[in-house]
Formats: sequence, C-alpha cells, structure tokens
Amino acid sequence: MAPAETGRPRETVAGLRQGCTHREGVPVMTGAPCPAWQLHPGPAVFCSWHLGHRPQFHPLKHGFDEWFGSPNCHFGPYDNKARPNIPVYRDQEMVGRFYEEFPINLKTGEANLTQIYLQEALEFIQRQQAAHRPFFLYWAVDATHAPVYASKPFLGTSQRGRYGDAIRELDDSVGRILRLLRDLSIAENTFVFFTSDNGAALISAPRQGGSNGPFLCGKQTTFEGGMREPAIAWWPGHIPAGQVSHQLGSIMDLFTTSLSLAGLEPPRDRAIDGLDLLPAMLQGRLTDRPIFYYRGNTLMAVTLGQYKAHFWTWTNSWEEFKQGIDFCPGQNVSGVTTHSQEEHTKLPLIFHLGRDPGERFPLSVASIEYLDALRRITPVVQQHQEALVPGQPQLNVCNRAVMNWAPPGCEKLGKCLTPPESVPEKCSWPH
Amino acid sequence: MAPAETGRPRETVAGLRQGCTHREGVPVMTGAPCPAWQLHPGPAVFCSWHLGHRPQFHPLKHGFDEWFGSPNCHFGPYDNKARPNIPVYRDQEMVGRFYEEFPINLKTGEANLTQIYLQEALEFIQRQQAAHRPFFLYWAVDATHAPVYASKPFLGTSQRGRYGDAIRELDDSVGRILRLLRDLSIAENTFVFFTSDNGAALISAPRQGGSNGPFLCGKQTTFEGGMREPAIAWWPGHIPAGQVSHQLGSIMDLFTTSLSLAGLEPPRDRAIDGLDLLPAMLQGRLTDRPIFYYRGNTLMAVTLGQYKAHFWTWTNSWEEFKQGIDFCPGQNVSGVTTHSQEEHTKLPLIFHLGRDPGERFPLSVASIEYLDALRRITPVVQQHQEALVPGQPQLNVCNRAVMNWAPPGCEKLGKCLTPPESVPEKCSWPH
Repeated sequence: MAPAETGRPRETVAGLRQGCTHREGVPVMTGAPCPAWQLHPGPAVFCSWHLGHRPQFHPLKHGFDEWFGSPNCHFGPYDNKARPNIPVYRDQEMVGRFYEEFPINLKTGEANLTQIYLQEALEFIQRQQAAHRPFFLYWAVDATHAPVYASKPFLGTSQRGRYGDAIRELDDSVGRILRLLRDLSIAENTFVFFTSDNGAALISAPRQGGSNGPFLCGKQTTFEGGMREPAIAWWPGHIPAGQVSHQLGSIMDLFTTSLSLAGLEPPRDRAIDGLDLLPAMLQGRLTDRPIFYYRGNTLMAVTLGQYKAHFWTWTNSWEEFKQGIDFCPGQNVSGVTTHSQEEHTKLPLIFHLGRDPGERFPLSVASIEYLDALRRITPVVQQHQEALVPGQPQLNVCNRAVMNWAPPGCEKLGKCLTPPESVPEKCSWPH
Repeated sequence: MAPAETGRPRETVAGLRQGCTHREGVPVMTGAPCPAWQLHPGPAVFCSWHLGHRPQFHPLKHGFDEWFGSPNCHFGPYDNKARPNIPVYRDQEMVGRFYEEFPINLKTGEANLTQIYLQEALEFIQRQQAAHRPFFLYWAVDATHAPVYASKPFLGTSQRGRYGDAIRELDDSVGRILRLLRDLSIAENTFVFFTSDNGAALISAPRQGGSNGPFLCGKQTTFEGGMREPAIAWWPGHIPAGQVSHQLGSIMDLFTTSLSLAGLEPPRDRAIDGLDLLPAMLQGRLTDRPIFYYRGNTLMAVTLGQYKAHFWTWTNSWEEFKQGIDFCPGQNVSGVTTHSQEEHTKLPLIFHLGRDPGERFPLSVASIEYLDALRRITPVVQQHQEALVPGQPQLNVCNRAVMNWAPPGCEKLGKCLTPPESVPEKCSWPH
C-alpha cells in the first residue's frame, strides 16, 4: 500500500451528535473506516449505516443499490425484551441479529463479522467488474467499536491486546480489497479513501479502545483527540504515493469530492459545507478554510490555519465523571478539560496546533500572536453564524417502540418481536 | 533513507543523572541524536560530549582521535563572571565560546552551529575515506536542546515552530551524511545508528521542546515519555529496510554492539549491562531482558516483556511544581504522576505497555494478570539487586572553580578567565 496522506482531515458534527444511537432512527454519522469507492451508479454499503434504522432511512431508500450490514453498531447483547438485538440486513430485509445468527463472543472477543463484510465487499467488486459496471462501495466495519472483536486467526496476535487484533484484521482486509482492485486491473481508476468518523473512544481504553497519540481527550469531545483523524487517499497513477497534505478537511468534504470525481456540480438549492478535496490530493493545492466544531447546537470551537479557538470548553459533567466516565483519562489541562460548560466566547482559548497539537498551552491573551489570531478568527465565525440556517432537530424524540423489534423480513425468519407501547419522550443526552 | 527501526530501545541511567551538567566535570550522558559510525580505530566526536569537561575527561583522553565541539550543552549566555560561557574545542584546545565566537541569537533562534558540525562531519568522513581508514564518528548535535536554534535557511520553515526548524535542519543534515556515505560507496560497510538520550524535555514545550506523543511525562522522569526513544539502524545490504524490531534496548547496548561489529568481546573484568543488538537487527532475533530505570541510586521501575513495574513514583517536588516546573504538562494520572516520592516496592504499580503505552491504566492488583506479571518480575529484580556493585558517587561535589574558566588553549585566544575561589560543596539535585 502506498498511500498519500491528507494531513489533518477531521469531521465536524454540525447539528449531529457523535456516537451510536439506538433510539430514534435518525441521521447519526458513525461507524468506522470507510474505504473503497469508485464513482458512478451501482453503489453498495456494507456494515454500519447509522443514518437511521427505520424503513424510510434505509440505504436502499437513499441511493444505494445493495446493502449488507446493520443500521446500528453491534451493541448488546440485548434481551429482546427491554431492547431488541440489532438486526443485520441483506438489502431490504433482515437476515438475522447480532448475538443470534451473527454471534459475537463477548468473553473471548471472537466474531467472524469482519470476514463476512470482507467477503461481501470482494464479491461485490468482482460482480461489478464482471459486468463492467462502475461502482461506489461504502465499507464501514465496526470491529474496533466496543465491544471490540476479531476473528479467530487474528485473536491474540497483537501486542496491543484485543483492540490491536481488531485493527490487524481491518488492516488485512483493506489490503485484500486493494489487492483485488490491482488483480482486476482497476486500481488506476478506483479512488479509495480511508478514514474514521471520530477519535478513539478513550472511555473504552485501553482494552476496548484506541489511542489518540499526542492529542487531547477522545471521542465525544471537541478537542483534537475527538475530532482529528488520520486519512489516506489511494488512487494509483493519480495521487502520488507517500505525499502528505496539510489541507484541513472534514468527512463532509467526501460528498463534494465524490461529486467532483463524477464530474458533477454540488446542488445549488442548499448550502453545502463540503470542499472538493481533489485539488489538494491531485495537485497539492491548499485551500484555507475554517472547520467548525459543534456539540448539539453549540459552536464549541473553530480551527483556522494553525489556530484553534475554543468558545466553550467541556468534557463531560462532574456527575458522569464521578461515575468513572472519563473522556480524557490521564489528561488534565487546567481550565481546558473542564467538567462544567465554561464559556469563552468573548476571549476564546486559542492554541497553535502546529507547536501544540495536544492543546496543552493556551496562548497568552496578552500576546500579539493571540490578538492576531483572534482578529482573523472573529470575522470568519461571524460570517458562519450569520449564514447559518437552523436545521430541524432530529434527535429530540426518543421512543422505545421504534427500536428494531420487527424489521422488514422478520416474519420469514420467525424473528419478529412485539414492540412496547409507543411512548415518545424527550431524549436525554448527558454529553 | 530506508531505516530499519528497532522498536523500543530506551536508555537506562543506572547511577547517572539525566540532563546537562555544568558543575563537576563528571560522566553525564546527554546531548542529542548520535548517528554515523563505522568500526575500527580513528574515532572522532563532534558536538556535545557531556562526559566531563575537565582535561582528564576530554574525548581525546578516552579513545577519540579528533574532537570538534563542546563538553557541555550550549546553555547560557553566561556573564563570564558568575559562570563562564561554555567553550568549543578543536581537539585539545578551545577555539572559542558559545555566544562569543559561536553566536546563538536567543531572540531569533538563529545559530549556524548545526551547519558547522555537519561540515566537520562530512570533512572527517571524506578524510578517512581518502586515507582508506575505517572510522567511528559520534555526531551529537544539540540544536533541539533549549535554547533551540536553527540556521537561517531553516528558521521559520516548519509548522512546528522553532523546535520544528531545528528538527528539519537535523533531518537534512543526517540526510547529507547518509548521501555522502552513498556517494563515497561506503554505505554498505557503514553502520549508522540514530537515537536520542532521553524523551522530549516537556519543561521546555511547546516552543523549545518536543513531544512524547502518547507517552507519559518527559525527560527527567522514569515514565515512558522520559525513557522511551525512537531508534533507527541503517546499514544497507545488511539490515533489511523498513523492518521493525520489538527488541527492548538501551543506549548502553551500543557499546556491546560496537564491540560485536568490530569482532571483539566485551571486557570480562567488570559487569557489562549492554546487550549486543546485532542479532536483533540482522536476524530479527529477540532477547528477553529487563531494563531498569533509576533516579540516582533508587530503582524506580523495571520493564520486562510487555510489563513495566513502578517501585517508586515521582515526577518532581510540589515545591518545584508550584514554581511552574512541570515534567508532565497536561497529564495527570492519579497516584502515578505524584509530586511526592511514593513507595510501591511491596506492590508495584504495573502497566501493560502494549495495551497502555501511556501508563494511564495500572493493572488491578487483584487481577491474575497482575499476579502473573509480578511473579515474573520479582526474581529478575532480586537477581539484579543482589548482583549490583555500588559505584563511586560522581555527582556529589560541586565547585564553581572547576567550571570552564580557563580551558586549554585559552591563552592563545586571550580568552582565559579567572576562576573563583575553590569551594567544594555538596551538590543539590532538586529532581
């Protein structure tokens, strides 16, 4: 594998919450790395979808032609009474449930799921190639999400424990996908992008979670450890191998980039936040652009160039923290990793991410550097906020009755469960 | 450059203190990366020496044939009254002093020193090659030690600030040394080893210090951030490119490894702690061995396999810490990064460095894993302590009179200073 790394892409979560939801079936981006796509129709998604589990949200209703996988993470096992186990779909219909037809041994960490997803991906690519059809594949395995799993040949093979085993299987699988593209002689017209949707979930570390290296905190925060992701773009013959780009990007850019690869313009009837990353990847051209970091409706922070300004700081509540839920284990930056929601909108905390990627040393508000940075950041944020059109809240109503009790296809399998009474409630999001 | 990385070599400091000393001229290993050696006589050392500045300790008295550089770091500038500026030597005699004949602009960070050291190294190699002489070169530049410096072409070129500029110049210089070895067609019989003597000095971060990535704390501690180093071995045609070794090593191993390269046996009249790393580098053979971590005479910790046991924890004193001296900025692991010297000799804190390289999650003392690890570690430590022969303390006496007032050669330059009265005192080592 000879990747061209695009330096610091990260995601923003404007209006969306991070993390898995098994409540209302609503758009929540999560899952795991998503390599392998080639443009033009015939798309398929394998593994985690996470843009809603109710029928109207299913991938086949949103432009995909095939689907194998699950609408949610492999949380559980549930008891099918208070909560139903998450179903696995082939296209329109469920074919089983996690912990039932798709076993995951929570004690040993053994599960064959990554191998199943891999075979589906390889067969999909082979079918498209045999039919000379261009394709788009979204491959989002969730083996590295707690509870972490790996198949037998990988279990116990890593010095990093079970999490490392899962990573090794993921790495091996990506290698096999890339090898197939080469074997089919379509590597040079297949664009592959590999990234993650959030930083390591340190609440699950070290046995069930990754590491964010030098970055501050983890998933569920707007510090670098929650937001900054590795990203690798692969397109032999087009993207020079081994190059590093310092283009600031977000997962939202992949939409615009995909359109650009297909020779299409983004729709003009709505605001599109994504940037076409092709100039960065193909010609090394850099676009100076801000990235905004939200929690719910609150603009927590913004990055512009090398500077990141925090308008609010918050990890999680004292209440949660005292229960042992820690998004920043072993880390404590005074006045930064706060357990109350601290407002800094007048005088944001500003870090220079080049010198201080770990957000440990806020610039002195009395320094010229601080004032210069603030002078550049302020109008960008003002413009953003003035142009912002509030979205319809989609995560406010929770209802156990809409969980995966009786997904399409359950009758054939005799796996329909009886939903509880419908009781819509206001969702509670503790962080 | 196609390096073979030797995974986790680190140093131990048994009986030696870390850090620069400008007090008694005694053996203190410090400095910076030390690449480029080829075995057999004709050795030279360039840049920081740090094994004593008094005449009896000079490199030419300890097996080196040439010397260009300084016996200490480029600390200062001093006033030549309370403390003399550190001299720079060519062989037996000083040729000037830092901040005088060898300027360092503390405001801009500009200094030409790395370029001077580089030219010396390149000329030395060319001379040896012209004379068909095998050589040993110890090249230990100190540009990345605070106060950090770089030459004009590198200043301001890094996104990492001045520290990054210094690193870029260092990287460029190593590249030029390797290129010369290739140009002279001696790459295949030149063994090059690149490493550092301690982790990043976080007390100087972020402007004047590096980062220890995921590791805990920094230089001056026995946590991974103080002790764990990158190490790259380069020997085209012998060490396979791109290989990673998980051999646990220490800088002391370089002595034994050098002897092995020269076909010599280590002396038998004394205990030699170093291990020959060649089997690890050439054949990928791993040797299971412990590494002991000392502060002064106190055995702070030991690593054995994947497990590290801390018998004592201490960063620095509350007194120092309250003055703003912080070896672990932004990090705080409860009961681990302690500011008092905490004893755990009965029940050491044990970490699994594979799952938890950041030493954030001590194993539960009630777990089977803890008991198994302790059962393996205990006899190894006992054996070590029983076999230990106490050394003669070499850092107990401090005396301003023995500083670099009138180094050899000062007369010719008119640069002799009058030393103060000799007042030997017990040294104070606050950490």
